[in-house]
Amino acid sequence: MKIKNITSIGEFGLIDIIKNKFVNTNNDSDIIVNIGDDSFCFKLGNMRLCISKDMLIEDVHFKKDWIDPEGLGKKSIEVNVSDIAAMGAVSPRYAFIGLGLPQKTSKAFFIQLYKGFKGACDNYNMAIVGGDFVKSDKIVISVTIVGIVNGKIIKRSGAKFGDLIGVTNFFGDAGAGFSLLYRYGTRHKFNRNERILISKQNNPKARLKEAWKMSKYLTSLIDASDGLYVSIDSITKHSGKGAEIYIDKIPVSLNLKNVFRKNKEQLNFALFGSEDYELVFTVPNSKASFLKKLVPQISYIGKITTSKKVKYFYDHEEQKIKYFGYKHF
Amino acid sequence: MKIKNITSIGEFGLIDIIKNKFVNTNNDSDIIVNIGDDSFCFKLGNMRLCISKDMLIEDVHFKKDWIDPEGLGKKSIEVNVSDIAAMGAVSPRYAFIGLGLPQKTSKAFFIQLYKGFKGACDNYNMAIVGGDFVKSDKIVISVTIVGIVNGKIIKRSGAKFGDLIGVTNFFGDAGAGFSLLYRYGTRHKFNRNERILISKQNNPKARLKEAWKMSKYLTSLIDASDGLYVSIDSITKHSGKGAEIYIDKIPVSLNLKNVFRKNKEQLNFALFGSEDYELVFTVPNSKASFLKKLVPQISYIGKITTSKKVKYFYDHEEQKIKYFGYKHF
Repeated sequence: MKIKNITSIGEFGLIDIIKNKFVNTNNDSDIIVNIGDDSFCFKLGNMRLCISKDMLIEDVHFKKDWIDPEGLGKKSIEVNVSDIAAMGAVSPRYAFIGLGLPQKTSKAFFIQLYKGFKGACDNYNMAIVGGDFVKSDKIVISVTIVGIVNGKIIKRSGAKFGDLIGVTNFFGDAGAGFSLLYRYGTRHKFNRNERILISKQNNPKARLKEAWKMSKYLTSLIDASDGLYVSIDSITKHSGKGAEIYIDKIPVSLNLKNVFRKNKEQLNFALFGSEDYELVFTVPNSKASFLKKLVPQISYIGKITTSKKVKYFYDHEEQKIKYFGYKHF
Repeated sequence: MKIKNITSIGEFGLIDIIKNKFVNTNNDSDIIVNIGDDSFCFKLGNMRLCISKDMLIEDVHFKKDWIDPEGLGKKSIEVNVSDIAAMGAVSPRYAFIGLGLPQKTSKAFFIQLYKGFKGACDNYNMAIVGGDFVKSDKIVISVTIVGIVNGKIIKRSGAKFGDLIGVTNFFGDAGAGFSLLYRYGTRHKFNRNERILISKQNNPKARLKEAWKMSKYLTSLIDASDGLYVSIDSITKHSGKGAEIYIDKIPVSLNLKNVFRKNKEQLNFALFGSEDYELVFTVPNSKASFLKKLVPQISYIGKITTSKKVKYFYDHEEQKIKYFGYKHF
């Protein structure tokens, strides 16, 4: 008998196992958005809450010499706020930080890390209200954020036939930055464009304000933490739909183009590079141009179809695209 | 210049740094219990919520061959529910589970672990509603629990002069069980008493029902996750009081007495052994005997004084007691 390990099942397979075997919330009418979306949302009395939870582990999600402790603290908060932003009109309110730290960690590192947590929380008027410390070989940062819903909640499952697929800004920068650090290390003398890509990897910004502005008009919404390809796949699967994506419409920064000159390289970073933390959304065609005026930096990159397949086109010609992004397991 | 590391500051020192430098919630009138208690509690509309967060790391909190995966899943939930119980009349409602797992983890391990999570959650009518999976060298389990307040919230800071200090049941068993596993490993042939001590270490039970029954009458409350000594220290410090503890009144199980026959050993486990997850509380003298009738397994082990010191007595004679329990940093 072959013993299966979790690598052969994959992250999404594991989530399916949990959903099928271990989740029993069918009778809980207070649940608005259940497990499997970016955050969990529920009614409580006359209010609605969203809760997101994310974990960053040293040498899996970051390397200590790639990012300074303040940046690491800031990033840990931003990636969680991004999960809150991906639900629509939600204000992050309280942050809980669980920290696993090696015993040799310096006081200075600890203080800088917390400076990063607090700086990012302050930007969102969010309070650090709890958490715990434990000893650990590797740094582990586990953040839970509680957000208060003050408008429309948008799931990833609401895309309708004919909706346009939009994104909030450039794709590929963060993945390209990661790749530069991975290839050359931190001692390499990077040029200006390269440094900007690296800063996109280390210093992401959650698209909270954009989510607030747009949510009223959207039919589905997700953040692109695992890359654009995965986000589109998730929206279409959860919505029971398909999509046509026009590759030449995917916004790619000049910085990325200057550093990686081949079209194919740029496309790979844009589709499969993770951690851009842009939002990916669908909007009815009738509201698309109004939304573009409201949030000028958005781009439309495709539309929802009924085919249950995602097809990629370049210059009107269909392209075969195969996933080769990062897999956790 | 000597570079300070976090070991020289200690867990509680780190919490103080955070409280002094990085917490700014003075203006948030919705906060009922802030950082530094077992859980964080806040008002939301017409409801009140408590949130607890705890992290367990392989080879720090547990060893894979000391506890089976189902037991580990169950324990991870119980220790978090214990933090909810330590707040008084609160019902745990939703559980978020963040998991760091090595790639080689078997599917069977994963399923058993989740069976443990779900079994424990089912006991409390609590739903597993979210979380995430990441790759990790060591197993990391980060649980966040959201509880709904449905009665009185009890902080650790409310002890009054003359209050009796009570505990829900035996102390020392879990620490003794840990010590047996540590000394002899899992292959040792343990006798019945020893196996019971080990099961107290591996299979703790949060005192949620006791908390519900008692909370109306209590002035302060804490769980004894870090040991009885630390709990008493915390209640007195947070309340600005002192205490007299009568060592001979600390309840110790027959199992512990049968395995560790020396008084001093028993006392060390009872005071400094962690993970008993019993509740430690204070109650006005006038309500003490009524409470004992309501929850017969409780014992009174001392009383609150105004001295700001905790004094330990054995047979009316004061004893010098020095902390030598487990320190995370």
